[in-house]
Amino acid sequence: METGRLETFADGVFAIAATLLILSVGVGIESSQGVHLRQELLSSWPSYVAYVVSFMTIGIIWANHHTVMNQIARADRTFLMLTVGFLLVVAFIPFPTRLVQLYISDPTNAAAATVAYGITLTLTAVTFNALWFYAVRGGRLLRADADERTVQGISKTFRLGPWIYLVITLVAVKAPKVGAIGFLLFALFWVIESSVFGRSSASR
Amino acid sequence: METGRLETFADGVFAIAATLLILSVGVGIESSQGVHLRQELLSSWPSYVAYVVSFMTIGIIWANHHTVMNQIARADRTFLMLTVGFLLVVAFIPFPTRLVQLYISDPTNAAAATVAYGITLTLTAVTFNALWFYAVRGGRLLRADADERTVQGISKTFRLGPWIYLVITLVAVKAPKVGAIGFLLFALFWVIESSVFGRSSASR
Amino acid sequence: METGRLETFADGVFAIAATLLILSVGVGIESSQGVHLRQELLSSWPSYVAYVVSFMTIGIIWANHHTVMNQIARADRTFLMLTVGFLLVVAFIPFPTRLVQLYISDPTNAAAATVAYGITLTLTAVTFNALWFYAVRGGRLLRADADERTVQGISKTFRLGPWIYLVITLVAVKAPKVGAIGFLLFALFWVIESSVFGRSSASR
Amino acid sequence: METGRLETFADGVFAIAATLLILSVGVGIESSQGVHLRQELLSSWPSYVAYVVSFMTIGIIWANHHTVMNQIARADRTFLMLTVGFLLVVAFIPFPTRLVQLYISDPTNAAAATVAYGITLTLTAVTFNALWFYAVRGGRLLRADADERTVQGISKTFRLGPWIYLVITLVAVKAPKVGAIGFLLFALFWVIESSVFGRSSASR
Repeated sequence: METGRLETFADGVFAIAATLLILSVGVGIESSQGVHLRQELLSSWPSYVAYVVSFMTIGIIWANHHTVMNQIARADRTFLMLTVGFLLVVAFIPFPTRLVQLYISDPTNAAAATVAYGITLTLTAVTFNALWFYAVRGGRLLRADADERTVQGISKTFRLGPWIYLVITLVAVKAPKVGAIGFLLFALFWVIESSVFGRSSASR
Repeated sequence: METGRLETFADGVFAIAATLLILSVGVGIESSQGVHLRQELLSSWPSYVAYVVSFMTIGIIWANHHTVMNQIARADRTFLMLTVGFLLVVAFIPFPTRLVQLYISDPTNAAAATVAYGITLTLTAVTFNALWFYAVRGGRLLRADADERTVQGISKTFRLGPWIYLVITLVAVKAPKVGAIGFLLFALFWVIESSVFGRSSASR
Repeated sequence: METGRLETFADGVFAIAATLLILSVGVGIESSQGVHLRQELLSSWPSYVAYVVSFMTIGIIWANHHTVMNQIARADRTFLMLTVGFLLVVAFIPFPTRLVQLYISDPTNAAAATVAYGITLTLTAVTFNALWFYAVRGGRLLRADADERTVQGISKTFRLGPWIYLVITLVAVKAPKVGAIGFLLFALFWVIESSVFGRSSASR
Repeated sequence: METGRLETFADGVFAIAATLLILSVGVGIESSQGVHLRQELLSSWPSYVAYVVSFMTIGIIWANHHTVMNQIARADRTFLMLTVGFLLVVAFIPFPTRLVQLYISDPTNAAAATVAYGITLTLTAVTFNALWFYAVRGGRLLRADADERTVQGISKTFRLGPWIYLVITLVAVKAPKVGAIGFLLFALFWVIESSVFGRSSASR
């Protein structure tokens, strides 16, 4: 089975999940009457930050999926089902994002919201790993001319992902705002790392 | 008429229907104030299970549509309209999923919600059958080099689908939770069957 | 400019507009507590009918757009902008659909809802006409080998469309339920006409 | 890296962001009971205008992105990340659109809503510029046979964009309705300019 239609489906889910994030920006604002909108918009800044972090995270996942699929020649049914499982978790991201937007300033519930966010991102990394290592194992689905250095590089980076998300999630249990900043910094790190440093090495 | 743009449209509907499922996860949680979020998130587990089952089901439908379209060379207007009817039912899935998420723990209404879910999945299987057998009949739209064994295999599996969904739906009338578990197990069965057993046979 | 990316964008809008229709099915049901769900689901049948009619209508528009683009070789900026205007109206369909779902059984407001629906469908037909006749005029954007008979056939059918929708809309002013049945019958007519009769003639 | 999948992802976000705009048309109407719908629909005209302006704006962005990508041969990781940043802002448009729809007739809050709208469009133009000038600089990502006159034309137009949006936004601080009309006129100008004048020059 060729991977073309699989990429179309995945790109669809990525694009929709990212774009749906806007539906929960400033949820509380519209319903209230007698509101002072300027004030509300200014104090809603955590809602925008959460939007940006989740959108960037899905954007990075999309770019990495792109890189991964470039090394893969074909898909079997197991790979298809692993992809569905992975997309299922990615499409879940808007829900904990909404929780963080609603509860990050609420001392009682900020931890629960941030941890839910962290668990989702950890599962994203875990299922992405499952996808990749299933394809790589014994060169099962790799292209005949797959670039050995790129494959090694992806494997090395991917192995770290779940652990980093897990550590930030554990931090969020005790200090939800520190955890939230952790997710922001990790997304920024990815963007900068791949933009600035990736430019020289990965010019394909 | 070629099938390329038809597949793009179908993939779009599959991806959107699956991703929209997230909008009804934990619907009740956000609106309530003075909420204990951790408690709420833990007790919302049926909502996540329903999300996973429906997402997997749409994912399986997508994978099967993929397999089906691989055997089909061209589309006529009747096939196009049958596809629209089929997609219409698939795009309906988020509604009964939301009903199950809202009412599965409500003894009065769990049966109505689960039966609505079952009727939708039964209709999905029925319209998918209509699509397939219209194309196959007398080799009407099949590729000249369609694989006879694959075509027979699809036909055999497809004939069973509606009946299995119908039986689970009938169970749900009396025992909604057993029915809900039935839909979960059937989706899991499909995933495992096609992943584990499909690997050896269907390597195209 | 080639038409490939234009079709991708249009297909995206068609697929999303159709799939978003589900968000307003049974809107009233979930929010009410102490509800008798079975009763509610049965009495919501106009909501399902409206969903089916709008989904079929968008599906027919998609199929016809397909047929139209098959005769067109290239796009200029005017054609692009006409397409955006056309898609803008198609993407509007979920709103009057929701109105019909909410108000068709309310004697005071049924007319307003059905007329809003009719105006939207009339505008869809008008903008689709604008698109087509701009492309056809003097063979401006047609393929060199465009099938003359198909082009004539499309033109003839398209000229009628806005008038039929306008007539049904005018009926809906006085008799909203008759108008609603009119939109249903017209969609059914299209499906049957193109499925049964189109099969022999348009086999490309 | 080729630009094909990047365009698919971008087109997906454009199509979804544009189609999601319908979700906030007439938000207030449905929830109210004992409503006089005809009256409500007529007095909601600013909601439709905002829908049309935002849809047209996204449509123009899509058409321009089309033109831009025609001159670009390949993408590196920085370009990918700039695209994600750009799409992040485009996907944000439905939120300030909803604000304008809700508050344009409310003297206290019309300015805040219109300014939020203006800032979003200004940022859209800024990030679109970042994308373009990164690709153009030293011919970094341009096609070998990129049309020099087209490249110059895009650069010239793009440089103006953010300033025009900024000026209209500043006007909106003092006179929100004048600002809103400004955004409408600017979108209309684009549509007309590219349709009427673009026809003779840009016939590729």
